[in-house]
Amino acid sequence: MGRITARTRVTRITVGGRTSHRDDVLAVEEPLEIRVGRTPLAVTMRTPGHDIDLAVGFLVSEGVISRGDQVAAAIHCAGPDGENTYNVLDLTLAPGVSQPDASLQRNLTVTSSCGVCGKASIDAVHTRTSYPVDDDLTIGAEQLITFPERLRAGQEIFERTGGLHAAALFDGRTGELIVLREDVGRHNAVDKVIGWAAREGMLPLRGMVLQVSGRTSFELTQKASMAGIPVLAAVSAPSSLAVEHARDAGITLIGFLRGSSMVVYSRPERVLDAPTPPTTATVAATATATATATATATARS
Amino acid sequence: MGRITARTRVTRITVGGRTSHRDDVLAVEEPLEIRVGRTPLAVTMRTPGHDIDLAVGFLVSEGVISRGDQVAAAIHCAGPDGENTYNVLDLTLAPGVSQPDASLQRNLTVTSSCGVCGKASIDAVHTRTSYPVDDDLTIGAEQLITFPERLRAGQEIFERTGGLHAAALFDGRTGELIVLREDVGRHNAVDKVIGWAAREGMLPLRGMVLQVSGRTSFELTQKASMAGIPVLAAVSAPSSLAVEHARDAGITLIGFLRGSSMVVYSRPERVLDAPTPPTTATVAATATATATATATATARS
Repeated sequence: MGRITARTRVTRITVGGRTSHRDDVLAVEEPLEIRVGRTPLAVTMRTPGHDIDLAVGFLVSEGVISRGDQVAAAIHCAGPDGENTYNVLDLTLAPGVSQPDASLQRNLTVTSSCGVCGKASIDAVHTRTSYPVDDDLTIGAEQLITFPERLRAGQEIFERTGGLHAAALFDGRTGELIVLREDVGRHNAVDKVIGWAAREGMLPLRGMVLQVSGRTSFELTQKASMAGIPVLAAVSAPSSLAVEHARDAGITLIGFLRGSSMVVYSRPERVLDAPTPPTTATVAATATATATATATATARS
Repeated sequence: MGRITARTRVTRITVGGRTSHRDDVLAVEEPLEIRVGRTPLAVTMRTPGHDIDLAVGFLVSEGVISRGDQVAAAIHCAGPDGENTYNVLDLTLAPGVSQPDASLQRNLTVTSSCGVCGKASIDAVHTRTSYPVDDDLTIGAEQLITFPERLRAGQEIFERTGGLHAAALFDGRTGELIVLREDVGRHNAVDKVIGWAAREGMLPLRGMVLQVSGRTSFELTQKASMAGIPVLAAVSAPSSLAVEHARDAGITLIGFLRGSSMVVYSRPERVLDAPTPPTTATVAATATATATATATATARS
């Protein structure tokens, strides 16, 4: 876990100012080869740490498994040169769980901020989910607008490197922060969150809000869909396909969640915008809930 | 080309304010299946437009070709249902050019803001380039700091959607903006730039600066390396592997290029930080160059 950040010597130049040399902190990016039953399935460029969550979340996102207990074992194994770099992870599926279709590796092809989008066949893009979103969750807009700041506050590595995406699950009913993960790849951050939840036996993630730091593309709505998450909220813009897929999948997709406002692209009925003027008691209760959530997230990290 | 943006009905909610319904503009994301000699090679989720540049740039980035004239023809063909959605592009390689190795498709696996990083074997990550960077380019810091603003000024679609990455080539000696491309995927924006340059017969891109809108990960240094680009500049942070690879490849990697300052992570000797106090004449000359560059970029778009 010492490899989440790396130090390096850099040159800082300011035009009209002075040039200095100093040590700087970088977010670590390293490849992780995910194997299933010793067969290489995929390589993702990720920030080390929570690798098992990442791999399990990836298998959920790809439809190989739908529950965490369908993975019986996970072991970091040696690479081609015999050295264990902790960059090769082999998962053993539980008895009775089908190995990934041979076509899956072939279909995990290229991508845009990639992930599930890399399918060699356009027809294969809409992976089926085990968890149709038929959630009756409603959440107050005044609750939602607290999530980006709480996500940012939980981003320890970003603070030091400026280089990471983040994803977090919030309980839509209580506002509790359940888990937060950072990664150089936004789809990895989401897979780490979903994989953690799968291993905790929490799938489908009914009643949950997935909050992400950046933009939303198809791959993120797809991952939310595979995990049964009813609300996906992002700080920035969604793509057209993210909106289209969220509507198809019954997901409430929120973008530009900044300050006190947001744009809702699909299923807006889950967001209650009736302004409830906060009383002193409400504010105090919220502050307590946040403190509890932070403690919980730390304990589970 | 009408599919770069899409309109959709959204709900805008402001806590304590009013809720409104309005039309919003989205950046379009659609899959593009890239075929070579009718064999599916990869699918990337991209913003439609400049598809041939994208596909050619992708083949350069993957080492399948090293010059644009190694592609003899490109045709949008019908998908599985017989309809031409303009989402399937078949490239025909020129006589004598080897078809992609059968292992390439197998190796284009997952990824982080993906692209070349998706290799099924960690050993295969370091694709070899035909164009070692041995560039004697030097560029003034005062020139470099103009690039992010000029990149942003050229981002037509971002202005309307807030949803796109951008990449541009600047001539390192004259400061001229050569070409600018936008895409939902940052690796696609870079592939579109490199593919355009390849088709113009400009590879290797000696003396050029590749300016990107976001962060830099390994995939971007890899693409710069495959196209022989000596300087890669980004508005945000690089990852550890981007820095490591830039140093190996001899690329000058710049991050946090904002306002009047920047951080140089590798080969800083290409950046001249001797502050040249601008005279009136210099300022005027720069303004003219910018105007010319904009006109050129428009003409070539």
